[in-house]
Amino acid sequence: MKKIAILGSTGSIGTQTLEVVRANGDIQVLGISAGRNIKKLEEQAREFCPRLVAVWEEDAARELRVKLQDTDVKVVSGMEGLLELASMEETEILVTAIVGMLGIRPTIEAIRAGKDIALANKETLVTAGHLIMPMAEKYGVRILPVDSEHSAVFQCLNGERREEIHKLLITASGGPFRGRKRKDLEQVTLADTLKHPNWVMGQKITVDSATLVNKGLEVMEAKWLFDVELDRIQVVVQPQSAIHSMVEFKDGGIMAQLGTPDMRLPIQYALYYPERRYLDGERLDFAKLGQITFEEPDMETFLGLPMAIQAAREGGSMPTVFNAANELAVKKFLHEEIRFLDIYDIIGQSMGRHKKTESPDLDEILAVENETYQWIESRW
Amino acid sequence: MKKIAILGSTGSIGTQTLEVVRANGDIQVLGISAGRNIKKLEEQAREFCPRLVAVWEEDAARELRVKLQDTDVKVVSGMEGLLELASMEETEILVTAIVGMLGIRPTIEAIRAGKDIALANKETLVTAGHLIMPMAEKYGVRILPVDSEHSAVFQCLNGERREEIHKLLITASGGPFRGRKRKDLEQVTLADTLKHPNWVMGQKITVDSATLVNKGLEVMEAKWLFDVELDRIQVVVQPQSAIHSMVEFKDGGIMAQLGTPDMRLPIQYALYYPERRYLDGERLDFAKLGQITFEEPDMETFLGLPMAIQAAREGGSMPTVFNAANELAVKKFLHEEIRFLDIYDIIGQSMGRHKKTESPDLDEILAVENETYQWIESRW
Repeated sequence: MKKIAILGSTGSIGTQTLEVVRANGDIQVLGISAGRNIKKLEEQAREFCPRLVAVWEEDAARELRVKLQDTDVKVVSGMEGLLELASMEETEILVTAIVGMLGIRPTIEAIRAGKDIALANKETLVTAGHLIMPMAEKYGVRILPVDSEHSAVFQCLNGERREEIHKLLITASGGPFRGRKRKDLEQVTLADTLKHPNWVMGQKITVDSATLVNKGLEVMEAKWLFDVELDRIQVVVQPQSAIHSMVEFKDGGIMAQLGTPDMRLPIQYALYYPERRYLDGERLDFAKLGQITFEEPDMETFLGLPMAIQAAREGGSMPTVFNAANELAVKKFLHEEIRFLDIYDIIGQSMGRHKKTESPDLDEILAVENETYQWIESRW
Repeated sequence: MKKIAILGSTGSIGTQTLEVVRANGDIQVLGISAGRNIKKLEEQAREFCPRLVAVWEEDAARELRVKLQDTDVKVVSGMEGLLELASMEETEILVTAIVGMLGIRPTIEAIRAGKDIALANKETLVTAGHLIMPMAEKYGVRILPVDSEHSAVFQCLNGERREEIHKLLITASGGPFRGRKRKDLEQVTLADTLKHPNWVMGQKITVDSATLVNKGLEVMEAKWLFDVELDRIQVVVQPQSAIHSMVEFKDGGIMAQLGTPDMRLPIQYALYYPERRYLDGERLDFAKLGQITFEEPDMETFLGLPMAIQAAREGGSMPTVFNAANELAVKKFLHEEIRFLDIYDIIGQSMGRHKKTESPDLDEILAVENETYQWIESRW
């Protein structure tokens, strides 16, 4: 039995991780966690019988403790609870499917405890890649990407040598507004934005996909995960989402990973790496697919990508500002407080005013995040 | 210094192998060979200073011996010469770029002498896969594919487990007549047939590409090389020749190898495997490429593929008949003695009349080849 714990078990990646667990039958889930969705946590606890359930909100934790009093499950809360979950003695892999900066501290705790990380939390590498990657190396743990694009690159690197990489080709669907120009985006609505052409995902990531912020964050993560310079990471728009990403090697040979859009594949791949298990699901049918088309990303219109690259190039605390500003801007967009293009303005202005800290530690990163939030709240 | 010998150094694969040698500067060519092109052999001998040059035709060998009398190069001839070339003591890799059944005996000799084989000779596995593959395993030598499609599959299997393969997806350009129906092929000329859309190759293989016999031979070879059942080998037509082949694994993940059409890549990959070296040449530019399209092969029109699959399914000596009949038919087509569709008739009728031998040894294979030639000559 492989033993795992899941940070963020009630979200999209968390529930799909549990689907993979259910289908395989040889993974034991030692711990699960969520912010406050105790209804789902209770269901998951009864089905998977973890030893520990961590709930972020104390009130919700108390409520769940009562609901689960007929079981042996221990319910913990707050950051202390997440840290306990992250470092449970027998865990082999921690799946970090939690959203936001909250995921970083437990990830660090898990690395220190020698757990491999199945990484789905974007903030970890975007804001703290300079802390996480050397730490992973020091403690000899693997950072196994769960994101579809990074998993594809990871699969393309199977059996290859890192020093022979020429560039990474991160594919992008282009989002629902591909082909439109800036003035066409002035009046787009929330509903328009939430219509992703290929993937069914959470609302935040769907907006990030429309702004190309998501692709920008992936470029930042790829830089850390695969230790490749920004100049060697190219984004290729490919609206069919059939190619999940590629690697070009120095001989000109390109390895690509393809498939239907199904997050269970990268999740399962991370959990069983380097083994591949049978996965029930639709297969890519090339005759039915008919074509894969390619174009360059429109960096003049979809500023999420060039802004992310700029933030990554500046480095230090700048990626934290990029990410925090986007997070709050998207929240406001989802509440229909701002318009689509305001997201770019909020990110751009937040970055413009920020005085960068080089190599920030975790407290500094969290302080920069807070300060960015406060500045945005004071202006929008 | 890596030490190699080349069977068939004056043909398309042979000369490109020498280009790779020239560009890298750390491969020593111990032996070269050709049928009778002594002009080119002399040039190659003077540039690469091999110890041995094997010439198939005795007269030509004598002539070359005179031309090279100012050098230390030893010139040998006939099958004895090829066998001497194949088993030179210091050779690490034998490149079998020779065309035809002639390549099989020296390949066997090289395997027995413990040389890895960079395999470009199709007949070896098509007619004698049942002899070669167990022998390679017994002597612990690697069969490194040089063909673009097989090299792609080989690259896709890097770091993967053979038992996790679901199927091989061998790509095909569809040839110059893709989209035409049988009646459109009645009047096609030799010149039409020799216009391959993507690859510049020898005439014989260009005709084989138009008939889809070439793809059929590749399916047969793939079966032996990768130990995959015929039912798990699918041909996908993709006219851009950007994807060189793919492997689908049991989790539904597909690995693909892409690049520009440049045979030097698979040649260099085979010579340095598992290392990748820088290769000077055009890179695949996805925005410029624009699209990759997919369709199923038209098995009603291009009978080369279904006939090959039938021959492979019957096994034994039947693939030898398929191959020999095609070889002679293409020769006649190149001499404009028969029409395009006659190639299928000659193959079909030759297979129809053949009484199959199970597990033929090399002498039986060569006898079947001869007998097939004689029967065809007596009828066409």
